[in-house]
Order: sequence, then C-alpha cells, then structure tokens
Amino acid sequence: MTTPPSDALTFPASDREFLEPHLPPVPSPSPSPSTTTQTHNAEPTLPFTTLTFATSLDSSLALSPGTRTVLSGPQSKAMTHYLRSRHDAILIGVGTAIADDPGLNCRIAGVGGYGADNLEGQPRPIIVDPSARWRITSQAKIVEMVRRGRGRAPWVLIAEGTEVDSEVRGVLEGVGGRFIPVPWGNFPGDCGGNEEGKGEGKGRKEFDWRQVLEYLRREEGVRSIMIEGGAAVINSLLEPRFQGLVSSVIVTIAPTWLGRGGVVVCPPRRVEGGVVVPASRLTGVRWYPFGEDVVLCGRIRVDS
Amino acid sequence: MTTPPSDALTFPASDREFLEPHLPPVPSPSPSPSTTTQTHNAEPTLPFTTLTFATSLDSSLALSPGTRTVLSGPQSKAMTHYLRSRHDAILIGVGTAIADDPGLNCRIAGVGGYGADNLEGQPRPIIVDPSARWRITSQAKIVEMVRRGRGRAPWVLIAEGTEVDSEVRGVLEGVGGRFIPVPWGNFPGDCGGNEEGKGEGKGRKEFDWRQVLEYLRREEGVRSIMIEGGAAVINSLLEPRFQGLVSSVIVTIAPTWLGRGGVVVCPPRRVEGGVVVPASRLTGVRWYPFGEDVVLCGRIRVDS
Repeated sequence: MTTPPSDALTFPASDREFLEPHLPPVPSPSPSPSTTTQTHNAEPTLPFTTLTFATSLDSSLALSPGTRTVLSGPQSKAMTHYLRSRHDAILIGVGTAIADDPGLNCRIAGVGGYGADNLEGQPRPIIVDPSARWRITSQAKIVEMVRRGRGRAPWVLIAEGTEVDSEVRGVLEGVGGRFIPVPWGNFPGDCGGNEEGKGEGKGRKEFDWRQVLEYLRREEGVRSIMIEGGAAVINSLLEPRFQGLVSSVIVTIAPTWLGRGGVVVCPPRRVEGGVVVPASRLTGVRWYPFGEDVVLCGRIRVDS
Repeated sequence: MTTPPSDALTFPASDREFLEPHLPPVPSPSPSPSTTTQTHNAEPTLPFTTLTFATSLDSSLALSPGTRTVLSGPQSKAMTHYLRSRHDAILIGVGTAIADDPGLNCRIAGVGGYGADNLEGQPRPIIVDPSARWRITSQAKIVEMVRRGRGRAPWVLIAEGTEVDSEVRGVLEGVGGRFIPVPWGNFPGDCGGNEEGKGEGKGRKEFDWRQVLEYLRREEGVRSIMIEGGAAVINSLLEPRFQGLVSSVIVTIAPTWLGRGGVVVCPPRRVEGGVVVPASRLTGVRWYPFGEDVVLCGRIRVDS
C-alpha cells in the first residue's frame, strides 16, 4: 500500500455502521455455495441498486440547471465516496455529466489510486446517454482520473443504432472506455440531467430502466450500482413502475432552502382511482444526523 | 383537574427535552425584575415567533391545494399540539382556514379543556385574512372548540377599512372572537393558504409581517406565536426581508415524496450581485429522528 494522495478522504468505521444494512452485500473473494445462498439471490437478474443524492429542504439538487451547488457538508461528501467504494458501478445521466464534469471516482483512503495500487474499490462510471450527446474530451475530469490511475474508464450507454462522433469515440476508447449500445425499445431524448418537466405531456418517450439494469447485470456482470443523478434520472426511478428496481435509497438533506427555480427531486404525481396519492413512500426508515445534515436510509415501499 | 377527554394527546417529557432550546421561554407567573432580565429582552417589541410545519421529502405540505394530507405520524401530531401549548397564539393564513376547517386548539392532556378546567395552555387562534374572505359559520370546528370549552375564540386580522359581512361577524363575536383591523400599508389579496406562486411578477402586493407581529406584541400582549401555515405564509416568512422576525424553525419531514402538483414550501429565489444564492439557511441545527419522521430544529441565519 502506498501513501494516499492529499485529496484522499476518510470515513470512520463508526459512521459506516448505520449505512451497512442499506448497502449491497460484500461479496466474498471466492464464494462457497453456502455463503452465496445466504447473501445473494440464487440467480439475480438485477444489480443491487442504490439511489442516492443530496437535496435542500425544498428538494433541490442545485440552484439552477447546470449550476454545481454545494449542499451538504464534508462528512456527507466523504460518505458519498465511501458509498462509491461499496458498489461495482456508479450511474449518472448525460445532463449531469455535461453540467458537472464529474470525476466519478472514489477518493476514500485505501481504495485503488488512494493508497492501494490497483483499482480495487473503484466503481465503474456509467453515463446513460441514449442519443450520444456527451462530447467527452481528453480534458474531462473523468478521463484525467483514468490517466492518473485513480478511476476506471467510463462506459457510455447509448441506444442501439445511435452513431457516435469518431473524435469522441477516440477519446473514450483511448483511455479504455466503451460506448455500449443497449437494445432498449424506448428512450427519452434526455434521460439524465436537468430536464425537469421537459416534454411532459408531449409524447415524451419512455425509458426502460429494467432493460438497462438487467443488461448491466447479465452482460457486464455489474452486481451493484449506485445511481447518483441527475433530477430526471432520480424522478424517473421514483415512478411507481420502476420502484421495484431500487434496492435502497440514501438521501442527504441539508438545512437550507434553495428557493424557486432549482433542479428539484419531485416525481410525477400519481393518481389511483381518480384520487391523487403520494408518488413514493419509504419503509424501513432510518434517520442519521450527520454534521449539519441528516442522512435518510430506507427502501421504496412497493405496492402489491 | 378533571379527566381529559378521549381525544387528549400525550407528549412524553423525554421528547420535550430536544425541543426546549427552540421554544419561547416559560414566563414565570409573577416575574421578578432579575429573572425577566435573564430570560427576555428588556423591552421586546416582537413576539417569540416559531415557524413550524410538516413536509414530504419533496417539500410539499399537501397533495394539492385544499387537500388535507396526513404526512407525519402520531408522535409528530402530538408534538404539534405540545408546541401549541407552549405559545400564546397560533397563526395561519386564511387559505388554510378555508381548506382545512382546523380546530386550532391544543389537545395535550392537562391543558385547559383536556384535564384542566380553564383555558390555561390553550393558544389564541389567529387567522390572517386581510380582505375578510373567511366565511366562518357556527359549524366551523374552531367555533365548536370554543363552545365545548376546548379552545379560545379566534382573532381574525383584517386590513384596516375592510368591511365584514354582518352574519359572519355575528358568528365570530357570538363566541367571543374578534375581527381586528390592523393598520398595514400593503397586503396581498391572499396572504395565506394555497396560492403558491399566484400573482408572482404581476404586481402582487406586499405583506408586512413586521407590522403585524409588532402589533400583536404591543397591542394584544402576544408574547409568543407559532406560525403553522399555509405555504404562502411560510414562503413569505422565509424571504430574506422577513427572516429576522422568525425566532425558531421546527420542521417535521416525512419519508415520502408526494409528487408534482403539491403545495410546496419553496421560498422565492434570491439573487445577490447577479448570482443566485440559497433563499434561506438554518443555523444551530438539530435533527431528531421521531418515529418514521425526522424533526429539524434551527434558527434562520440572518445575513448581516
């Protein structure tokens, strides 16, 4: 083990405890059949999927579309990186990739590139970009992380048949990344990012999360995935038809109101028998005060 | 002390503790000058004002305007009634009065009408209704509470010069309530209730909370006031120009997303030097997990 770089983060064992019941099981390096039965489904068809994000009290992720907004404190930031170390992959929508230029790696001390020599503990970044509109450059932070041995090369999920600019493909493949055409039937023009409400009621195409997640488990061996945003991705996964796909929800709430015009987490409303009912409810809820913030862990209550 | 009625609520001492630093000081029955100096301002011009409400994770108070929505659990409900017992008055906007037909009394066991014989511990209900549009009837729950000796008669704050229907006046005054004309300069057509965003940018009139609160302290002797809603009242008090009037904020958050179209707490956005900044921030924050909900206590950070 080498000395972690100066931007390494620590997340103490005492704080890990409350998260543990809400995280994917730790796979044993050479699982025996008996332990596999105890901790996994016999034949899982879906990854363990954790939906996680930080909001303000008025449910905003950011002050405005494209504005990176620091909401939560340093402890919550370290928590996010710890969560990354516990998942095979992290997924974001293309809107967030464009707006934030994120590194999408894990900076917890002891993880690959942060004290460990290989990429052990580094999640695979996945960008959902059906129409291939992300113009990744060699200056992108995510590319830099790969070059410096501090993160894995990203996968970009595109709709089957979508053409990719050759220069962009060159950049991605040059660092070992891949464009992965996925055979989804329907997809929105913008599934990720800050397209809150865009196209609502205007024949917006549907995104089939089940197909995408099943593909990642089956074809790419992704056992666990952490979904970090943006608002359109989160709101979509909170819709009743996709709720069964989410294994765990971890939300950080910061004690601030951003105000109107923010990028909000607020799923489409739900009407049952002519009556409006809550869009999503959590069960098995735990609240964990964490610095100035609070962390909420739970599971989505799936209606039978 | 008589036996409390069957709908009396209890709120255990163990749960009261975390609220105490966020509540108005308990006035001693015959204060000596020394204790007064210790716990109060020398000459307070404003009541101790607590802003309190329950929201969903997506910052909604209700599924839609006029829909009474049960968000928080039984413990949070008892907490709200305990908070009422600790304030001289509770204030709501007229929209909420019309939509909810609330009782606005305190049902904590041991409070007047709930085990005690007089009205000790019962707050004064105050409805802010500048244009006198609340058509209170003798069937209103608030009137029933007065008749049954379980609540104080309401005060309705109207803009000076506003005419009140004689029948409505008869109902209110018949139970000992009052219309109180207040000399405010400007007021919105609808200051309370579910008028989220209504009239924004259309020359909407301004509501001067300072004048109203100062009036209540000075002329009516209200030392503490709990402001319960609705959305327009809360959003207005979270605006920077009124933040200095709020002594304490107590928010209950329930682990559910109501979805789009709800009645949201989301103050007008704030721009400083061309840059959007958070509308309101809290300081001295405490989170208290409470059943399935969490209770957030804090003070608004007033910019110097």
